[in-house]
Amino acid sequence: MTTPDFSLLETVRLRRPLVHCVSNIVSAGDCANLALAAGASPVMAQAPEEMEAIAAASDAAVLNTGTPDGEKFRACILCGRETAGRNRPVILDPVGVGASPWRLERVEALLESFTPALLRANLGEAQALLGEESQEKGVDSPAGGTFSQRAEAARLLARRRGTAVLLSGPEDAVTDGESLWKISGGSPRMTQVTGTGCMLSVLCGVFAAVEPDILRAAVTAAAFWRACARRAEEWSRGPGGFRAALLDAAGTLTAGDCAADARAERLG
Amino acid sequence: MTTPDFSLLETVRLRRPLVHCVSNIVSAGDCANLALAAGASPVMAQAPEEMEAIAAASDAAVLNTGTPDGEKFRACILCGRETAGRNRPVILDPVGVGASPWRLERVEALLESFTPALLRANLGEAQALLGEESQEKGVDSPAGGTFSQRAEAARLLARRRGTAVLLSGPEDAVTDGESLWKISGGSPRMTQVTGTGCMLSVLCGVFAAVEPDILRAAVTAAAFWRACARRAEEWSRGPGGFRAALLDAAGTLTAGDCAADARAERLG
Amino acid sequence: MTTPDFSLLETVRLRRPLVHCVSNIVSAGDCANLALAAGASPVMAQAPEEMEAIAAASDAAVLNTGTPDGEKFRACILCGRETAGRNRPVILDPVGVGASPWRLERVEALLESFTPALLRANLGEAQALLGEESQEKGVDSPAGGTFSQRAEAARLLARRRGTAVLLSGPEDAVTDGESLWKISGGSPRMTQVTGTGCMLSVLCGVFAAVEPDILRAAVTAAAFWRACARRAEEWSRGPGGFRAALLDAAGTLTAGDCAADARAERLG
Repeated sequence: MTTPDFSLLETVRLRRPLVHCVSNIVSAGDCANLALAAGASPVMAQAPEEMEAIAAASDAAVLNTGTPDGEKFRACILCGRETAGRNRPVILDPVGVGASPWRLERVEALLESFTPALLRANLGEAQALLGEESQEKGVDSPAGGTFSQRAEAARLLARRRGTAVLLSGPEDAVTDGESLWKISGGSPRMTQVTGTGCMLSVLCGVFAAVEPDILRAAVTAAAFWRACARRAEEWSRGPGGFRAALLDAAGTLTAGDCAADARAERLG
Repeated sequence: MTTPDFSLLETVRLRRPLVHCVSNIVSAGDCANLALAAGASPVMAQAPEEMEAIAAASDAAVLNTGTPDGEKFRACILCGRETAGRNRPVILDPVGVGASPWRLERVEALLESFTPALLRANLGEAQALLGEESQEKGVDSPAGGTFSQRAEAARLLARRRGTAVLLSGPEDAVTDGESLWKISGGSPRMTQVTGTGCMLSVLCGVFAAVEPDILRAAVTAAAFWRACARRAEEWSRGPGGFRAALLDAAGTLTAGDCAADARAERLG
Repeated sequence: MTTPDFSLLETVRLRRPLVHCVSNIVSAGDCANLALAAGASPVMAQAPEEMEAIAAASDAAVLNTGTPDGEKFRACILCGRETAGRNRPVILDPVGVGASPWRLERVEALLESFTPALLRANLGEAQALLGEESQEKGVDSPAGGTFSQRAEAARLLARRRGTAVLLSGPEDAVTDGESLWKISGGSPRMTQVTGTGCMLSVLCGVFAAVEPDILRAAVTAAAFWRACARRAEEWSRGPGGFRAALLDAAGTLTAGDCAADARAERLG
């Protein structure tokens, strides 16, 4: 049975997997720092000219479509194709895919070039990818919806795209189109900090780099991130301190701490 | 009479306006986090291909010319024209406009393409736009000058460009070319953190998104930012902690807190 | 005799030198904030169109090859050539030069266009530049090696390239190919935060802007950075707080504090 497996944290810290992130100008620093705090070794390149060489050395890739331009999408295609072709996990975070027809069209082109192991999105992004009308406003304010709406959208997306899906919100839904996990807990402050979704995608890459079962990696990443949030809330007085404390938690929580803090249940 | 109207803070938190920021690689993360902490929903795109679609959905745009390249200026023109054409406020922050003849020429081209609702600059930047000799050194060390120099430059710039101007310095000057406001208070640590000017511009966009009177929006943003700074100074021991504490303050100060902390006076 | 000269800190705070940084999307904000906290005035441009004008006004340039693209390398060549041509110090930080053949080839092209005053690298990067096999994994996890390996690689690189070299690791080696300095102390947390190497390179630029003896500037920068790290460790509970506390330390430590904290010894 897939459960959050916090012993992965120790595996990460031992092996220091190389996680290649094509990131964005808003959260690149926080993403690299999170990968490092969790115990991985991040590489943050984005030039098409070096995607192949870096993919050849990486244990996982995390492709993020925030603050995109044409070159970055070109790099993502090269990176995704090469990494997936080597049977290494690719996490796709289609940030703001509903923001413009151009971005949607470019993300669709990505998904035609390779199949990610995992799509990590919010409800608005999932709806855009499903061709549904969305209430999405900005990248940090996903239309909340209910958990069953998120679970339904996640399952639909997983089946249509043939990948696992982690759909974030007040509770996270993780699914491969069949089985379904619900991860809850954490802190309401999570929505007051930008890039916490991008950072969760990076964590998925970090755990997927050492765990071939993508559902287990995603459930563990989501549960770990909520354990970090719960601790970070105690350690901060507002969103600025919380942002720093998330990294403190990621750098110091043990497997045992996480097991005490996280709530994950299998629903189907 | 225009006064800082901190009830705007509650309006922002209620309506969560979508504020589109064309930002820079130095302060994009801090800018997005500030918009979010204040209660707005930021979108940080910069590809020319998606400016029109995002402008159509945004409640305000904040264009920042830090770390520019040709494509970003092209995006700024498209975004500014579309947003202003829809009668939504555009805030222009001509970061480092005096840094090179190329940057000055590109900012002039922006200003010929559309009229921003507000120019938010420091004295060195205002002087560059006025064609005056400046003592500007770097983007974070505006030639201080006296308040009356700043007020004079702001008025001149406002009249010449037909926009409101918020000119930052030890005290801020806000003017539409006629009436003049002076906002003081805050913390000397403000000049020890990069991007605090960029962040103030974002706040102007956040408040202008819910308040059609641009002077009122700008005076409120400036006064709110100084209230945040005063609180953040108490909460920190140096510039790194101050940077985080600014976001803590923006995320937690109430209208009442701000009224107690801010000093704004109408001078003309 | 070259020793860390912490009175340079006072010179920097007095003169506020303009330090031009061509940076990357991961650490640009931290780099600008560090320059500012240390007392300098950073300018963070990267468009080829404005390199010449900015170089003409700058007291030093720091070129960083993280998250590169073709345009940025073009900007680095223009900036390096112009700055070095004006006899102002250029610091080259060949971030991740071993990450791809393309990046190595572009960095080699940089080094053929101008001679930096100082190369600031880690062992993996030095090995890539020396054409040696490296164990480098990612930009933040330099193959540790022993101090004597680092010292040897630094000397070899300095002689081959005709520049001073600061090679970072558990202890830093500074050399002009002949004399050798070892700087130790600091905090193990330094390796848990991304960009601390980029930030050290910026500090080298800050001190080199006011001190013509590049060895003295580099030894002082390395010793100052370790003094900051020692203090920041006391002030933090994990990597997120440490990252902020590094800036607190850089903004508040006095020359006297540093003298008490830093250990630098001349070995040859």
